[in-house]
Amino acid sequence: MAICTPLNSSTYSSIIPQQNHHDAAVSFARRACWRATSSHRPRRGFTVITCASSDAGTVVIGLAADSGCGKSTFMRRLTSVFGGAAEPPKGGNPDSNTLISDTTTVICLDDYHSLDRTGRKEKGVTALDPKANDFDLMYDQVKALKSGVAVEKPIYNHVTGLLDPAEVIKPPKILVIEGLHPMFDERVRKLLDFSIYLDISNERDMAERGHSLESIKASIEARKPDFDAYIDPQKQYADAVIEVLPTTLIPDDNEGKVLRVRLIMKEGVKFFNPVYLFDEGSTISWIPCGRKLTCSYPGIKFTYGPDTYFGQEVSVLEMDGQFDRLDELIYVESHLSNLSTKFYGEVTQQMLKHADFPGSNNGTGLFQTIVGLKIRDLFEQLVASKAKSPVEAKA
Amino acid sequence: MAICTPLNSSTYSSIIPQQNHHDAAVSFARRACWRATSSHRPRRGFTVITCASSDAGTVVIGLAADSGCGKSTFMRRLTSVFGGAAEPPKGGNPDSNTLISDTTTVICLDDYHSLDRTGRKEKGVTALDPKANDFDLMYDQVKALKSGVAVEKPIYNHVTGLLDPAEVIKPPKILVIEGLHPMFDERVRKLLDFSIYLDISNERDMAERGHSLESIKASIEARKPDFDAYIDPQKQYADAVIEVLPTTLIPDDNEGKVLRVRLIMKEGVKFFNPVYLFDEGSTISWIPCGRKLTCSYPGIKFTYGPDTYFGQEVSVLEMDGQFDRLDELIYVESHLSNLSTKFYGEVTQQMLKHADFPGSNNGTGLFQTIVGLKIRDLFEQLVASKAKSPVEAKA
Repeated sequence: MAICTPLNSSTYSSIIPQQNHHDAAVSFARRACWRATSSHRPRRGFTVITCASSDAGTVVIGLAADSGCGKSTFMRRLTSVFGGAAEPPKGGNPDSNTLISDTTTVICLDDYHSLDRTGRKEKGVTALDPKANDFDLMYDQVKALKSGVAVEKPIYNHVTGLLDPAEVIKPPKILVIEGLHPMFDERVRKLLDFSIYLDISNERDMAERGHSLESIKASIEARKPDFDAYIDPQKQYADAVIEVLPTTLIPDDNEGKVLRVRLIMKEGVKFFNPVYLFDEGSTISWIPCGRKLTCSYPGIKFTYGPDTYFGQEVSVLEMDGQFDRLDELIYVESHLSNLSTKFYGEVTQQMLKHADFPGSNNGTGLFQTIVGLKIRDLFEQLVASKAKSPVEAKA
Repeated sequence: MAICTPLNSSTYSSIIPQQNHHDAAVSFARRACWRATSSHRPRRGFTVITCASSDAGTVVIGLAADSGCGKSTFMRRLTSVFGGAAEPPKGGNPDSNTLISDTTTVICLDDYHSLDRTGRKEKGVTALDPKANDFDLMYDQVKALKSGVAVEKPIYNHVTGLLDPAEVIKPPKILVIEGLHPMFDERVRKLLDFSIYLDISNERDMAERGHSLESIKASIEARKPDFDAYIDPQKQYADAVIEVLPTTLIPDDNEGKVLRVRLIMKEGVKFFNPVYLFDEGSTISWIPCGRKLTCSYPGIKFTYGPDTYFGQEVSVLEMDGQFDRLDELIYVESHLSNLSTKFYGEVTQQMLKHADFPGSNNGTGLFQTIVGLKIRDLFEQLVASKAKSPVEAKA
């Protein structure tokens, strides 16, 4: 049974100080709740707000990533695993950051900016600073969506730098909150069924060194203190981290074209069994290039083993180098276990489907695809476990 | 059908210049041949010489090893794989170097010394020098045995340093020629169905450094030039090499108690499929110690991969460290492929059976056992292939 929780609007006035134009709508959103059996037309100028149609409730995934919010390759790979393409809400704000597919809704946490571009400039804070973000509203709305309650979420317009009128977000089967701070606020963090941190700080450092434009260097440099203070520490809370590092296959590599990517998977997370190579729990390095597989320079090297990460037990799968051809990928896939595929070769199929996406020939694409499969598996296990135990009804 | 080839005795007088007391017996051995259907009693004071009772002929294995001839741990492990214990010939010379089991006869190539201890001392040559060995007789007799013809083989008495009267060697199913020079003479080498080189020169070097006795140091030092000139070069002809090296798990290890052992397996040898770890033909390192398996310091590390050895394609399996307990061994066995076992856990069973043999807790015992299984497999495949094709009858 779907749960419809009337929201307490007493904290409302402090929540969106920059937004006056849709107070009534949000206030409405915080109170209203219908069980959705079919789609409703907007009434009294407001979008209809519905409860989650799935009795299993909404599974919430947090993805901490510094760029490409909502339209990121990672999200496109993730939604592809569930089938169907993710698209912006139909007929809505063309600058919406939201992506919706049959099962998945990806919202961009930039939409919870409490200060717009001008406001940040005036107060001298970056978008990375918690002061520029409204965590109370983020928490309220993620909690509402998780409970099956639709919300009217603000839109941060990346083109104008302004806060646009809100859009309605219905509770999906899977809600992905993507952006700078999905694990920053403890309350929001506790709502997450699974969390991922995309750690490209090393790649960014490399890019910075490579950039000739002083303005880009300066921009990266200016963000660094806030990044280190507010973004980077979220790593410790992530169930999975995808870390991008320079290759070790090329001695003293300065080009940064070949990447070494690590998938750090936390142990003991319910419904999440880390992927392993050959032998679970032991330490392995594997160079698949040899008699059966010919790779071009500098080849491919996988490493797998147990480790600790911020004091917690993790398993780490690392890929250094890049694929030349399809047969390398299927060869690699056939030697990985706990992939949560539904058929032999599904990883390779997904990668081929999006061969034009960035990272399709290296560990970023591979691990994003694998994490997508793990999230599908986690979702299905969560749904199955909720179907077994009766849903707790809240007053 | 068994093949009985009368031997040409024209070269006889030059063959065993030091041996006069059994000329007649050897001459007899070189001419006589019966088909054996049952065991015969000695006639005219000579042991009866019989042809091989197996139509498949005798499979000949060469083992180059510098010490412990005939009674070596390796041979005990090998014969154990075939079942039944290997024992010295019953009722014969108590100082015989030969070991006989139901299927296997191990002869010691020291028996082909042409110079006894005094002779070597007089001529100033070591036992390693080809001048102290009779390769013509070695070739004649190994060839005879391979063709199903029994021989009267001299005995080098390690106790007295003299050449004792000959003993009869019947053609067994498997003949192992073990000693200093199984692959030295090209003719003998071509008779081998499989060859193994036990490379403990590094271990010996370590032992030398560790020895306090000047006499032992001097003895090892004195052998070195001949060893390098005549023994070591046989490595290049071996189908399998077991190489004993110092561990790399303990930084700057000087104790030499923990060994790193490499099994170097030649590619493209008929009926010999090299053992592999996880993925055939790729390069892998594996530390099985971790979440599933707890190892004491310094742990265990396996390495596997393709390589070249004297310009030839080989696969190398390396074990560094030592086993603490049984479950480590069965755990390791379960991850190795192409072991040629007849049932799950046979390697572990064999190792347990001879837990008191030297090297049972490290790579020497493991790889000796594995080579034993590979030889059994090679033997069975050879027999099967010969059963399919008609035996070529020689005049």
